[in-house]
Amino acid sequence: MDNAITVPVALEKNAYLVHCGHGIAENLGEILTSLQLQKSQKLALLSDETVAALHAENLLALLGEAGFQVELFSVPAGEQSKCFSVAAQLCEQLAQAGFDRSSCILALGGGVVGDLAGFVSAIFFRGIPYLHLPTTVLAQVDSSVGGKTGINLSSGKNLVGSFHQPKAVLADTNWLQTLPFATFAEGFAEIIKHAAIRDPEMLTNLKGLTANSPQLAELIARNVAIKAQIVVEDEKETSGVRAMLNFGHTIGHAIEAAAGYGNLLHGEAISLGIRAALFLSEKITGLNPEFSTQILQTLAAFQLPLQLEDDTTFATERLLELMARDKKFSRGENCFVLLEQSGKAVLKHNVAATDIRAAVEHLRKTVVR
Amino acid sequence: MDNAITVPVALEKNAYLVHCGHGIAENLGEILTSLQLQKSQKLALLSDETVAALHAENLLALLGEAGFQVELFSVPAGEQSKCFSVAAQLCEQLAQAGFDRSSCILALGGGVVGDLAGFVSAIFFRGIPYLHLPTTVLAQVDSSVGGKTGINLSSGKNLVGSFHQPKAVLADTNWLQTLPFATFAEGFAEIIKHAAIRDPEMLTNLKGLTANSPQLAELIARNVAIKAQIVVEDEKETSGVRAMLNFGHTIGHAIEAAAGYGNLLHGEAISLGIRAALFLSEKITGLNPEFSTQILQTLAAFQLPLQLEDDTTFATERLLELMARDKKFSRGENCFVLLEQSGKAVLKHNVAATDIRAAVEHLRKTVVR
Repeated sequence: MDNAITVPVALEKNAYLVHCGHGIAENLGEILTSLQLQKSQKLALLSDETVAALHAENLLALLGEAGFQVELFSVPAGEQSKCFSVAAQLCEQLAQAGFDRSSCILALGGGVVGDLAGFVSAIFFRGIPYLHLPTTVLAQVDSSVGGKTGINLSSGKNLVGSFHQPKAVLADTNWLQTLPFATFAEGFAEIIKHAAIRDPEMLTNLKGLTANSPQLAELIARNVAIKAQIVVEDEKETSGVRAMLNFGHTIGHAIEAAAGYGNLLHGEAISLGIRAALFLSEKITGLNPEFSTQILQTLAAFQLPLQLEDDTTFATERLLELMARDKKFSRGENCFVLLEQSGKAVLKHNVAATDIRAAVEHLRKTVVR
Repeated sequence: MDNAITVPVALEKNAYLVHCGHGIAENLGEILTSLQLQKSQKLALLSDETVAALHAENLLALLGEAGFQVELFSVPAGEQSKCFSVAAQLCEQLAQAGFDRSSCILALGGGVVGDLAGFVSAIFFRGIPYLHLPTTVLAQVDSSVGGKTGINLSSGKNLVGSFHQPKAVLADTNWLQTLPFATFAEGFAEIIKHAAIRDPEMLTNLKGLTANSPQLAELIARNVAIKAQIVVEDEKETSGVRAMLNFGHTIGHAIEAAAGYGNLLHGEAISLGIRAALFLSEKITGLNPEFSTQILQTLAAFQLPLQLEDDTTFATERLLELMARDKKFSRGENCFVLLEQSGKAVLKHNVAATDIRAAVEHLRKTVVR
């Protein structure tokens, strides 16, 4: 595949490759064959209605021509599909359509489809293989890499799931051209997070990028490599390394939950969470404010929100309470990822309640550039 | 623990111990402590209403006295609780009660509770630790060992699940004294299966055993050791060794499904399935009919059914169709476990349709002893 940049996720068990490039969807048959998938094994293309309408026909035709048996299953678009009842329905549909332990799932879509399809793959017949075909920036640089699958409970996001690594990831950057601007842009919150915790030089290349930029595939691959490295160091989030990926996510998740899932895009909430985490980093771990300014300017360049209204929805007390319920607050201790310097993150336990409150209040202020 | 026989399940990763003995429930606190469980970690005692009424109070008191925080969650008794909606409800209840990734589940009950609680443990917060406290013979000798967890779909049993090994198993044989006779006896179908495929000498010790027999703990431990050995040889059922445990299960599962789950006990269906598998073993792999007779006599000693009425429920066509849908018929090939001789099982693919039909028809005949 001359047109792809391939990044390995070099796990000891379950290693796999992430292929990034313009128009590489065409190589899907070739990739499946390289994974020793037999043409007798049934493929389920699992997607949401929005993405299926845009890209499923092309993939079904392509796989059919390559001699694979493939069937499309689609769920309503949006976070509300990441739940037990939709997972149950998919399992029933797959079983009724004759899928079994020899089958394989192709997860075509953004984070919701990826997490849901990954979860279904993890539990159907006690685990079947699957591939990610991520169609958003967020899914390409973040959620499709690392094997975290999950669904939401009414008490919180991703409270149910499994670690189940895909057999491969195929990130076709052409798919990004069909995204609404806000969905394209929200992915940059995770890219900027990667820059903040591991690769500050990346910031200089970001401004002005669009879904048509030729350098996009390289940028995606660079981010996949950062995520892959962290996942390899700590596959099941036990050593604390993988927790670094939660930079901006502690307060970000509370903001996302307060908005009501789906009302604020994940990347938008994380943009706000990053600003709060930068504030805490300056105060607690001595981060140079110049780096904060550079991060905030880059988030702003993608029109990501940095300021939070002080209204009922986002009341400080409410955000603090949601944070206390977060699964990252294991055993009642809070735990924040902060920056000591550009590219260097650390875990801080038991951050003072007054500091957390101040960080939330800081989001009420206009960003001064 | 002087009163326990301890059998190791010596998996490379996730090794654990199975403790068997009369009255060893008293040692639960000690076992939890030996597993490095902290008293700050919340315990969820998960059971069904029938078993909870018999044994939960005692365990809650015992754990409370030992200083553990424990909360009881119970589901309706019976196979219908092994489904997505009950699993979802348990996850919601656990999350709302403040359980998190540091929590631990205790699965108190028979196979249904064990499979369901194991599945919830596998997916809650992407996997938390759990212990099996099996209260039936079937669960003590079979389902609590090996890490298979699962729930049913409308198309079939255990079609959704996970491999998730418990941290320990505590099989108190005193619990067996509260079982109705049929529930006590059905467990012997799996014990007799173990004898058939690996340990024919065990057959001589079985007749006349009751829930009060002092030699019961040793028998349970002997069966756990057989199951553990097979699981260690093939944890995720990939090499074919673990498949040997399906002796009697291919036709047995079809009979169980035809009866409607819950109408025939699992062990009762397996008893019939064993008779059919013995018939095929004599015909195809040359099993000595004397061994079949010995097996059938032992099944009969526990009042397990050996003859199947030729009515609409168990019509041959219906059973054959249900078998064809079984997940053991991977990729359309049938696959039977047959005996070449006492204690020696083999996998046979593509058994002739006429032979399968004859095995089902054989179940219409009276057993001649």
